[in-house]
Amino acid sequence: MTRADGRTNDQLREVTIERGWSAQAEGSALISFGNTKVLCTASFTNGVPRWLTGKGKGWITAEYAMLPRSTNERMDRESVKGRIGGRTHEISRLIGRSLRAIIDLKALGENTIVIDCDVLQADGGTRTAAITGAYVALADAIEWARGQKFIGQKSQPLIDSVSAVSVGIIDGEPMLDLAYVEDVRAETDMNVVVTGRGLFVEVQGTAEGAPFDRRELDSLLDLALGGAVTLAEKQAAALA
Amino acid sequence: MTRADGRTNDQLREVTIERGWSAQAEGSALISFGNTKVLCTASFTNGVPRWLTGKGKGWITAEYAMLPRSTNERMDRESVKGRIGGRTHEISRLIGRSLRAIIDLKALGENTIVIDCDVLQADGGTRTAAITGAYVALADAIEWARGQKFIGQKSQPLIDSVSAVSVGIIDGEPMLDLAYVEDVRAETDMNVVVTGRGLFVEVQGTAEGAPFDRRELDSLLDLALGGAVTLAEKQAAALA
Amino acid sequence: MTRADGRTNDQLREVTIERGWSAQAEGSALISFGNTKVLCTASFTNGVPRWLTGKGKGWITAEYAMLPRSTNERMDRESVKGRIGGRTHEISRLIGRSLRAIIDLKALGENTIVIDCDVLQADGGTRTAAITGAYVALADAIEWARGQKFIGQKSQPLIDSVSAVSVGIIDGEPMLDLAYVEDVRAETDMNVVVTGRGLFVEVQGTAEGAPFDRRELDSLLDLALGGAVTLAEKQAAALA
Amino acid sequence: MTRADGRTNDQLREVTIERGWSAQAEGSALISFGNTKVLCTASFTNGVPRWLTGKGKGWITAEYAMLPRSTNERMDRESVKGRIGGRTHEISRLIGRSLRAIIDLKALGENTIVIDCDVLQADGGTRTAAITGAYVALADAIEWARGQKFIGQKSQPLIDSVSAVSVGIIDGEPMLDLAYVEDVRAETDMNVVVTGRGLFVEVQGTAEGAPFDRRELDSLLDLALGGAVTLAEKQAAALA
Amino acid sequence: MTRADGRTNDQLREVTIERGWSAQAEGSALISFGNTKVLCTASFTNGVPRWLTGKGKGWITAEYAMLPRSTNERMDRESVKGRIGGRTHEISRLIGRSLRAIIDLKALGENTIVIDCDVLQADGGTRTAAITGAYVALADAIEWARGQKFIGQKSQPLIDSVSAVSVGIIDGEPMLDLAYVEDVRAETDMNVVVTGRGLFVEVQGTAEGAPFDRRELDSLLDLALGGAVTLAEKQAAALA
Amino acid sequence: MTRADGRTNDQLREVTIERGWSAQAEGSALISFGNTKVLCTASFTNGVPRWLTGKGKGWITAEYAMLPRSTNERMDRESVKGRIGGRTHEISRLIGRSLRAIIDLKALGENTIVIDCDVLQADGGTRTAAITGAYVALADAIEWARGQKFIGQKSQPLIDSVSAVSVGIIDGEPMLDLAYVEDVRAETDMNVVVTGRGLFVEVQGTAEGAPFDRRELDSLLDLALGGAVTLAEKQAAALA
Repeated sequence: MTRADGRTNDQLREVTIERGWSAQAEGSALISFGNTKVLCTASFTNGVPRWLTGKGKGWITAEYAMLPRSTNERMDRESVKGRIGGRTHEISRLIGRSLRAIIDLKALGENTIVIDCDVLQADGGTRTAAITGAYVALADAIEWARGQKFIGQKSQPLIDSVSAVSVGIIDGEPMLDLAYVEDVRAETDMNVVVTGRGLFVEVQGTAEGAPFDRRELDSLLDLALGGAVTLAEKQAAALA
Repeated sequence: MTRADGRTNDQLREVTIERGWSAQAEGSALISFGNTKVLCTASFTNGVPRWLTGKGKGWITAEYAMLPRSTNERMDRESVKGRIGGRTHEISRLIGRSLRAIIDLKALGENTIVIDCDVLQADGGTRTAAITGAYVALADAIEWARGQKFIGQKSQPLIDSVSAVSVGIIDGEPMLDLAYVEDVRAETDMNVVVTGRGLFVEVQGTAEGAPFDRRELDSLLDLALGGAVTLAEKQAAALA
Repeated sequence: MTRADGRTNDQLREVTIERGWSAQAEGSALISFGNTKVLCTASFTNGVPRWLTGKGKGWITAEYAMLPRSTNERMDRESVKGRIGGRTHEISRLIGRSLRAIIDLKALGENTIVIDCDVLQADGGTRTAAITGAYVALADAIEWARGQKFIGQKSQPLIDSVSAVSVGIIDGEPMLDLAYVEDVRAETDMNVVVTGRGLFVEVQGTAEGAPFDRRELDSLLDLALGGAVTLAEKQAAALA
Repeated sequence: MTRADGRTNDQLREVTIERGWSAQAEGSALISFGNTKVLCTASFTNGVPRWLTGKGKGWITAEYAMLPRSTNERMDRESVKGRIGGRTHEISRLIGRSLRAIIDLKALGENTIVIDCDVLQADGGTRTAAITGAYVALADAIEWARGQKFIGQKSQPLIDSVSAVSVGIIDGEPMLDLAYVEDVRAETDMNVVVTGRGLFVEVQGTAEGAPFDRRELDSLLDLALGGAVTLAEKQAAALA
Repeated sequence: MTRADGRTNDQLREVTIERGWSAQAEGSALISFGNTKVLCTASFTNGVPRWLTGKGKGWITAEYAMLPRSTNERMDRESVKGRIGGRTHEISRLIGRSLRAIIDLKALGENTIVIDCDVLQADGGTRTAAITGAYVALADAIEWARGQKFIGQKSQPLIDSVSAVSVGIIDGEPMLDLAYVEDVRAETDMNVVVTGRGLFVEVQGTAEGAPFDRRELDSLLDLALGGAVTLAEKQAAALA
Repeated sequence: MTRADGRTNDQLREVTIERGWSAQAEGSALISFGNTKVLCTASFTNGVPRWLTGKGKGWITAEYAMLPRSTNERMDRESVKGRIGGRTHEISRLIGRSLRAIIDLKALGENTIVIDCDVLQADGGTRTAAITGAYVALADAIEWARGQKFIGQKSQPLIDSVSAVSVGIIDGEPMLDLAYVEDVRAETDMNVVVTGRGLFVEVQGTAEGAPFDRRELDSLLDLALGGAVTLAEKQAAALA
């Protein structure tokens, strides 16, 4: 079987990372996974939320959102509805956890970095593109803070890199990095967050149709780990 | 190493299921996993949400909440705050997906079942207890609907059973069904939703501390599948 | 006329109080008036709201809520609607005032007790069961605080006990402790909050159908005072 | 003891009713009880809320609010806070119930009257002034509807008049129609809603300080019934 | 062409200002432009919002609202909807800016004045009546504060007076101070805020139908400046 | 005086319009005025809001928002705050009115076009860039609808083009198209919306510091009309 866009099952879409897209943020990246485009910014501020004060540790948090016409049909704005939906909350929390997993919060000192991931165009895999791009923005914000001497010269808050990719089973075949048309057909859908060293940060697999067995799970994890290697290279290149 | 409550690493806490606890719901169960107590009710109504109308299919949805003093320190009510938090949304969505995975929505007809999981007392594993208890409430609501002839005698919406259990790594050792004191210490925390036939519905693993490797992931899945066998037996006994 | 459940007009439903139902709260009681079941917890914290700070007085406040399927037809959650309804507000305020009426706030010191009354099952009289059960939870929380030396050994914040009961006129006859089927038929409905010494804290009578006269009001008050004697005995027995 | 404004204990403040104050509403009255001023309007519309449709009955509902600077210290607007407080809800519901008690909803036909009571200046007794003035606005809206033939010539939705007054115990003495300075000192505070024929619609007594006994309750009811006679005369004069 | 109420095109409706209408506010005015009636109050408090603290300057802010039945058809309350609409926000901001333009915030000291403009009856021009009346309330609140020595004897925060008026083009003719029936027919609608010295504070012109040209704009400004002279005289007379 | 970026007082910043930036919207443009970048999309749907149904007319509405890190300091998201601020509302309404002014809603038929203007980077003049870019997106959406035959071949809903520009007085000198550093220093700030034929749609002038006189107003309008000619040319070029 060939995929709609001619990729092989273990092939990522074209991934591009425009580092420093925003003139104002301490770190930023416009990342694309095919037609999915996410603007990631990292905002550095001194101080931490009240519940962390005085513990000598920093904080990383993230917010994810979609522009109303990033999708094929216009969605209502969450600001207009007056409520953030469950999916938005869930993805924001996932991004935050994923980034904190590769950060030494003590080395960050009592500083906060807020990551914003705004989806400008959505074609599947927005949360995985967001995590992958957010890492680049985060790395730059940390470098900026070091330049400003908000972080000591010898401190290294970044203990690894992190990226994410979706995998899924379509018509019984495991596939890497699903585009939207694939995602809606997938029987099983999994998002995997992996560090540069190849360790798992998050594994979130969901049976959209029929439940999946252990062998299918294993083949999806294999695909994801392979994709993560490529993404880590793209990140390193962007940051070089 | 022995666990705080003397369990072995692959042992569940005591699980009890009081079927039919509520006099008013079409199905209900008060489930406990040790000190965690969740009241699960299933409310059956004819008709489906507007976006499903006329498609000949039913719908299952779920809402999860915690009483303000189910926890050690009182939490503010989400109704008073005027917003549902991200964690609540996330768990409600997880419960709904887990149940829909073992339901033939066509066989349900154009009917809706709303599952409510209210945590009366929380000691770790509230979401897994909720899913496990919700299945019992759901099964009874379906039986009730068959009795009322809202579902045909030959229709069988339930295509499998489903339960859930948490697993985690503490001090490097994989453990089953974490109590709260264990949960806060876990380096990796995973919630696994498994059908009665032993297939995965959801696998959600998170590195709370250090990222985890493939071997650790495998040992956690082994533990979870073992726990799911026991839970499926408890459910069957409650429904007998 | 006989009542649906065979009671005489001046007879309460079966009242049970499970003191200490919750393992975590400083005080708790699961109270039932027939099929109405309310879980009452009392949460003790040091300090008072800002507007009371430095006045040497404590504070008691209460929140009432119903589980969505405590009723015959499922209700939407107030947390999902994003607003607390008028009835909920009104009952929460009533419970708070009722408890404060039997408390010496100075003797409580600068401490706060939050009462939560969550209706697990509703069959009429939920607010009166809530007040009656809340007193037991409150008494235990005060005893707990004394044990913790948050309240002096000689201080006695409790200056009386308090309970509540509904009365109403159905087909011209005054009746005590209305069940739901009676409540919807009542021409006049009254909730009466009475101290252990037989004094009134709240008298809230409402003509649901025709207005009522002075003689009817008097007969309702007579019934309520009689019911309050029994409730005070039940409370004393639970706390013994 | 003499009262601050020289009234006797059983004397109302000066009550004035400006009928038809608003040029636009179907019925309106600007009522004052001393310095308390409430603008009451009645808005008539054809049709009823969905849950009443097709039952051949009308509906009366009410909303109460205070201007932010109706009080001595400016209050935040509820529209700005984004929530209606418990007290506002409670009073709105009280006004609505009080008016429905003297209305034959069948005679009203499938029409709705919305009563708005906006407190322009507050000096105690705003809810009782609101009910008393709302009756005048309501009566005029019904007359207007009859003129428009929305209500039949022979139908008489108004089956009685209704007014309300506060009573309370201050320094052990029962007093009628409390001004704000009295209200804050009252040990017991009661709002009584009475029909023109002298029957009770609502009796809401609250112990603000010490609980009250049966004798005190009786003396308060005597005072309230006396005040209601005068208020009914004022209403009749305004509508003449 | 003659206007519905017989006015000439450059004639204001009857303008009345009842200074000191409210017994409780530091400054107040009930202003009417024909049938439009707005109650304006000014509330003085010591201190400023946090973002201004320590800068030696005061603050003026304003809130505008309409009573639900100020209009011909009853509107829903914004407090009930839980949100303030765009129009309300816009007008509140306009009133605040207009008043700040004639205030020396340094001379005000670290004090805040909140202006509330509540529309009791609406017949076009509510925002312009609000600004014109708010000036009177503001002037009195400043005088009050001087009396209380919250503002020094030599300080003069008021550096000019301010009023506002609407102008519009109807059937090609520029007209002053549009009533509601005129407003809905206007092709162009402009609100002009002018100081006592004849300078512009705000010019807000909007093409409701066809866009307008420079000549039309000029004729509207001429009319507005003329109306402002009369309004300034009315304000001076009220404050005399 | 020279401006910070070397422009003359009557010179626009560099304006670029990337037409069709979004792959999914019916019309779109990424517009920049110097460092200000706004993504404008136009979403076409059949049907109109309920209040317009059956009148044979279409509808255009707009929503404006800023990404949280479009600004120099990160702002909180309005979706997180749960409320849309006054400024956002005001600008959204301005954009909608401006576009409707050059549309023949009858020629549009019963169709709705929603314009979204999301500020990706903010450096002053975001609302004027939004209007200018929105026109391009709108024109393309109309062309798309014609291609889909949702609009007749002979219908021409666009009756003119529209653009907007800010002007202001800084140190007494009128200047065109203020950048952020200029905007905060301006004594008077004016946004002017002008059609391709040079007619005014909106004129919104505000005295930020001292009020302005008629001569200043005239010089600002002159500058704005000049800028509008250039913007109309840029729009025509983008659409060519």
